[in-house]
Amino acid sequence: MAAEIVNPLSGSGAEEGAQEEPFDPAFALHRGGKMAVRATVPVRDKDDLSLAYTPGVAKVCTAIAEQPELVHDYTWKSQVVAVVTDGSAVLGLGDIGPEASLPVMEGKAILFKQFGGVDAVPIALDCREVDELVETVVRLAPSFGGVNLEDISAPRCFEVERRLQERLDIPVFHDDQHGTAVVTLAALRNAAKLTGRTLGDLRAVISGAGAAGVAIARILVEAGIGDVAVCDRKGIVSRDRADLTDVKRELAGFTNKAGLAGPLESALDGADVFIGVSGGTVPEAAVAKMADNALIFAMANPNPEIHPDVAHKYAAVVATGRSDYPNQINNVLAFPGIFAGALQVRASRITEGMKLAAAEALAAVVADELSADRVIPSPFDERVAPAVTAAVAAAARADGVARR
Amino acid sequence: MAAEIVNPLSGSGAEEGAQEEPFDPAFALHRGGKMAVRATVPVRDKDDLSLAYTPGVAKVCTAIAEQPELVHDYTWKSQVVAVVTDGSAVLGLGDIGPEASLPVMEGKAILFKQFGGVDAVPIALDCREVDELVETVVRLAPSFGGVNLEDISAPRCFEVERRLQERLDIPVFHDDQHGTAVVTLAALRNAAKLTGRTLGDLRAVISGAGAAGVAIARILVEAGIGDVAVCDRKGIVSRDRADLTDVKRELAGFTNKAGLAGPLESALDGADVFIGVSGGTVPEAAVAKMADNALIFAMANPNPEIHPDVAHKYAAVVATGRSDYPNQINNVLAFPGIFAGALQVRASRITEGMKLAAAEALAAVVADELSADRVIPSPFDERVAPAVTAAVAAAARADGVARR
Repeated sequence: MAAEIVNPLSGSGAEEGAQEEPFDPAFALHRGGKMAVRATVPVRDKDDLSLAYTPGVAKVCTAIAEQPELVHDYTWKSQVVAVVTDGSAVLGLGDIGPEASLPVMEGKAILFKQFGGVDAVPIALDCREVDELVETVVRLAPSFGGVNLEDISAPRCFEVERRLQERLDIPVFHDDQHGTAVVTLAALRNAAKLTGRTLGDLRAVISGAGAAGVAIARILVEAGIGDVAVCDRKGIVSRDRADLTDVKRELAGFTNKAGLAGPLESALDGADVFIGVSGGTVPEAAVAKMADNALIFAMANPNPEIHPDVAHKYAAVVATGRSDYPNQINNVLAFPGIFAGALQVRASRITEGMKLAAAEALAAVVADELSADRVIPSPFDERVAPAVTAAVAAAARADGVARR
Repeated sequence: MAAEIVNPLSGSGAEEGAQEEPFDPAFALHRGGKMAVRATVPVRDKDDLSLAYTPGVAKVCTAIAEQPELVHDYTWKSQVVAVVTDGSAVLGLGDIGPEASLPVMEGKAILFKQFGGVDAVPIALDCREVDELVETVVRLAPSFGGVNLEDISAPRCFEVERRLQERLDIPVFHDDQHGTAVVTLAALRNAAKLTGRTLGDLRAVISGAGAAGVAIARILVEAGIGDVAVCDRKGIVSRDRADLTDVKRELAGFTNKAGLAGPLESALDGADVFIGVSGGTVPEAAVAKMADNALIFAMANPNPEIHPDVAHKYAAVVATGRSDYPNQINNVLAFPGIFAGALQVRASRITEGMKLAAAEALAAVVADELSADRVIPSPFDERVAPAVTAAVAAAARADGVARR
């Protein structure tokens, strides 16, 4: 099997083809887990202990009790993110529960560390009601500097994030939504530039109205896309439909200015951009009807909605979620730097401005090296995290949510 | 100020004399916190990522979903303990809330790592009701191999622990109770041996009926103490008193066989052992009435209930909670090895047998080197953790709670 790096797309219908294999190297690597904690101060003798633990620690506790913001200075709170899930929408696997989701959350945690220098702790919760999830995370929040929500199924994920951010003064970020949206926007910016257009020139079609699809639609509109239509399994989301959830009704309010109706195929007729976050397969005949110089981002894993070989017949730029094709849309390009930047300035939340700034900074990393096979940096490009971190920190200051 | 290492005694009335001092070395050491996470697997290139994250991780998730016990093999669950508090009874500081308690929880976490090789994560919860605490920890439990409760005020701590252990199949251990009890029993065993007596020969008086006092009484009775009377602020806890909480009524049922009543001072008349976990000061006149060869464990910090200089006038063995006197009763002698042993065999709980085994193993470390100044090992004695770990693992097997 080709090596693949994929970003977790909530609500993806993509099949996970892999079956458990004995003696698989993935099992060997996972034995005993993938992370550990370590002390960053010495604990060699009783003098060390008297500073790091009692009695020295009591002075620090007392100071924080008197001046609560000191918790950011004298504990690891400001550098540690809770990676929170309920295991309800894990990768392409779906609802596998909290324990079975832990390998993904550990993986996420080590990516935070590796790419952003941010400590992260997997917190897989055994509860499902929105009220319970919100209440539990609010109770946990004193120990953490940020909350990365992960693999929580739509539409609950939207309300969980909104209510948590209302109640907490630390950043709450559902990566399946916003991480995917930021990286997609960055790649789309560069793809438009490469083909001599602006975002305002483009009409986009998003296949998938789950966590990723909704967030991508939102960020594209904020960034000034010409028009965007979002399709779910029943076709184009439009104000006329009577079967919409609250989230999709809201979506219908700010997308699809053209007032399209019907199936995905009809939306693609003359469209400039296809963004797939749904799985399934788009018929080649529909792809053929897209506008010239089409931009095709078929991000389902492991099977893109439009195979790259097909996409290249009609498109100027092709991106996927896979590491074995060019232009991989991978969330790891965004979330480590976004949290690193937010934590650096102790942002109270992650604003739309911070996400847009992250996308711009990410796009700018390869601005001078653009080609059809290079509209987005590699996940291992070492320029990425510092650029995103700095842009997000600056945007937090500009938006008035920085606390230092 | 003399270097001190103290164990956190819940409900202690001891004063914390230290005030915040600018440029104090404790503040310098605490800046940025005391711990971090690290990846234990490589994440250098896309091949690494394809094993540690997607797509490789999906196979591991699927395997756990099909066979839930595999979570212990393929994640860090089985080696990570949640250090859970609500910040209601922190050291001698009392109710300072979750954020201000974090430096202690981080300190505890690094002691787990340093002394037991056990990963630990500080979880300071913003809730107070027993129901809320229990429910929150139950929801968190999928991510952890054990729960160390810390600095939760009595009497709530008793019910929180009991209900959590009923609902969870991982060890739940309130260290302020059982850690203190295990180390106290170990030291008392050796002190009795040194003075030619058995536990059954001893009548003990415990000053303090909070978390530590109750747990010490319980373990002494289990270990076969001759008799033990527990005193709270109103005097000796006895069946005749009408003002007892549920926990103290239970305590009255299995302690004070002699049926003593009255103040602490009268209980001390002729007593062999004094165990102080309350703070305050015991008048020298009362100490003078203790039996010959008395054993005095005055564990309040920073001010022992009986000053060691006074205690030595009447006692054969003196122990305190301080590192600047001999025979320091320090929980770090117990909790790292207890959890390491429990996790090693994937114990579903920590039984009374495992605690007794821990105390015996701890006592045995210095059995051949006993002296009045050496009834318990130093916290930095490297023989301690392996001995406790092995004894606890063996006891878990003997008690039928080991799962491997």
